[in-house]
Amino acid sequence: MNSSALPASASPVAGRHPLPDLQGPVRIAVDCMGGDNGPSITLPACKAFLEHHPDAELVLVGLADAIAPAKGWSRVTLVEATEVVSMDDPVEVALRRKKDSSMRVAISQVKLGEDGASKAHACVSAGNTGALMAVARYLLKTVQGIDRPAIASVMPNQHDGYTTVLDLGANVDCSAEHLLQFAVMGSALVAAVDGKENPTVGLLNIGEEMIKGNDVIKQAGELLRQADARGAINFHGNVEGNDIFKGTTDLVVCDGFVGNVALKTAEGLATLFASVIKQEFTRNIFTKLVAIVALPVLSHFKKRMDHRRYNGAALLGLRGLVFKSHGSADAFSFEQALNRAYHAARHRLLDRVHDRIAATVGSLPAEGAQPSVDNPQGDGVTSTPHTPVGRVA
Amino acid sequence: MNSSALPASASPVAGRHPLPDLQGPVRIAVDCMGGDNGPSITLPACKAFLEHHPDAELVLVGLADAIAPAKGWSRVTLVEATEVVSMDDPVEVALRRKKDSSMRVAISQVKLGEDGASKAHACVSAGNTGALMAVARYLLKTVQGIDRPAIASVMPNQHDGYTTVLDLGANVDCSAEHLLQFAVMGSALVAAVDGKENPTVGLLNIGEEMIKGNDVIKQAGELLRQADARGAINFHGNVEGNDIFKGTTDLVVCDGFVGNVALKTAEGLATLFASVIKQEFTRNIFTKLVAIVALPVLSHFKKRMDHRRYNGAALLGLRGLVFKSHGSADAFSFEQALNRAYHAARHRLLDRVHDRIAATVGSLPAEGAQPSVDNPQGDGVTSTPHTPVGRVA
Repeated sequence: MNSSALPASASPVAGRHPLPDLQGPVRIAVDCMGGDNGPSITLPACKAFLEHHPDAELVLVGLADAIAPAKGWSRVTLVEATEVVSMDDPVEVALRRKKDSSMRVAISQVKLGEDGASKAHACVSAGNTGALMAVARYLLKTVQGIDRPAIASVMPNQHDGYTTVLDLGANVDCSAEHLLQFAVMGSALVAAVDGKENPTVGLLNIGEEMIKGNDVIKQAGELLRQADARGAINFHGNVEGNDIFKGTTDLVVCDGFVGNVALKTAEGLATLFASVIKQEFTRNIFTKLVAIVALPVLSHFKKRMDHRRYNGAALLGLRGLVFKSHGSADAFSFEQALNRAYHAARHRLLDRVHDRIAATVGSLPAEGAQPSVDNPQGDGVTSTPHTPVGRVA
Repeated sequence: MNSSALPASASPVAGRHPLPDLQGPVRIAVDCMGGDNGPSITLPACKAFLEHHPDAELVLVGLADAIAPAKGWSRVTLVEATEVVSMDDPVEVALRRKKDSSMRVAISQVKLGEDGASKAHACVSAGNTGALMAVARYLLKTVQGIDRPAIASVMPNQHDGYTTVLDLGANVDCSAEHLLQFAVMGSALVAAVDGKENPTVGLLNIGEEMIKGNDVIKQAGELLRQADARGAINFHGNVEGNDIFKGTTDLVVCDGFVGNVALKTAEGLATLFASVIKQEFTRNIFTKLVAIVALPVLSHFKKRMDHRRYNGAALLGLRGLVFKSHGSADAFSFEQALNRAYHAARHRLLDRVHDRIAATVGSLPAEGAQPSVDNPQGDGVTSTPHTPVGRVA
């Protein structure tokens, strides 16, 4: 860590970044069978993604027949699997019975081998969330310093950008330490994928004042302030539900129960809005004529609010990059999830998580090994004693 | 309880209702000083309300000068107060220092005297929520069988109606018993104000399956199923955030932290939608012309989504009816809060809460005393031993 020369007020994390990007092609493993529509969606998305990213390679995983259409594509490796995890398979089935599922084989591509190398830099699946998290956690294990993986995604905000929110449902009961870990991992995600090197962090609460909220939230606020003082994160303070859409902070941290309710509530209201707008513009012949005139404006509105643009949730805290697409994603939307995985790998999300954990607990080695073609995630993280973030300091 | 003659599948609560309405005029006490704009909003709202309700009377509470314009109005009693609780006064100030505030004097109008009578059937204030809850709880105390008061309000749904949600922020840590109490009180509210005698209840969770959620939620699900079996409520099962706007159930129950986040998240997204629609229609001369053509459609859309129509949160679980208006309400919106208070009093919300508690714990007297002009809330509730709902059964 070369932060000692920085003025005391500067964040050492912010000061050290940007890390040099990953060199060479980024290789992404794709579970082609996941989601409501499987290969009919994922293969066209992969094709479009390859066209837009000449420096990317894909490992396409699926049933032999399903992935056969991709035979002969350049920059593609086909890997056969014999089973498929369905959207309503219980976690146990995905974990214990379907050991040759496309989901599992795809995730295993990002697992580090004994030589410290993995076959792909990141993995993307539209399969069911519970199964994906369980299998990924089982195969990859968690990063040193992180107790529990979390799910992070983005929601649109008034700055014409988006706000990253986590956890969105992986953890229903969280301690203050977990919330701190989410803040650390989420900051690394925003830095890697959105290019904001020192993103602001908000703690979701029911009022801005420090005395608001339950005991866990108050303790978390204290831990986040300490982490801010160490330069590990850029803590703004408490935020409320509406701040997600105001874009008050780049990142909003909450437990998985609250985050899931907020996400589903927003989805429900968006659906209601869309349905009422449609009803109003199709009410009678006059309103239908108005709709034709207003079409360019309505289309532009729809495009700005299009949730498909925001697809691609990150499973954070694992020793490997895994991204989850909406099960109902179309090809455009699935491609956005591939894009997010690509940026995470190119801008070395795992190393960024490691750096921020080190800055928080002040005890990990300063840098993990630089990722290479044979060792894309670096291995410094795995060689240190287990020190959960927030337990120290 | 005359439910023994009903078929086993029928709810005794549903079977016994509707209760006969309150007879004679409904009298509502109004804190005229509360809210961002005080009397300039509340007085016009009161005037409109009186015109629309020939069977209503108002007790207007405020500083002498502020309420002077209402002198001579028919069906109005003026009550002077010498202090005002400001929107940012801490709870302690409202509770201990401003003992002659318009808020406190208005609430005291619904307090039962030693003769079992109160001066008004309900109270409405747009003052700050924390102060209103604290003063109301201090003056009125909680109903037998209820540990903690809760705040209930409504959100629009796809059935062109609305969904009632509680708690919205009064209780940040809730036990399973509290959630059951919220379900019981909320059911009484929907029955009284919306006229649905046996409203469906959903438990807010992060999945519909019974095994989802944390321990408190799972226990609450069990208690709610037992209460349903007794006919005290009509329990649908778990619901998710989007079900609020789908209108899957009439009522959604959650702890105050989660409810407040859901409410604020919805408000934030609604604001974002409105702002993006406005931006799109004012982008250039062409879109402005389109906006003029589309004005009737947009106005109708706006009217349907108008949050002002949904104003008036109920403070439930107190020995007296208190309704809270948004601080930023305009006269139209404040009048809606008066309307909700009026319906709650007319359809005897307090008696309905009592009946449902009795049906839940099976130990309170079957009926409270019928409300009368001198004893508008009935007093059966206060004469029984304290048996919190959910602790029994």
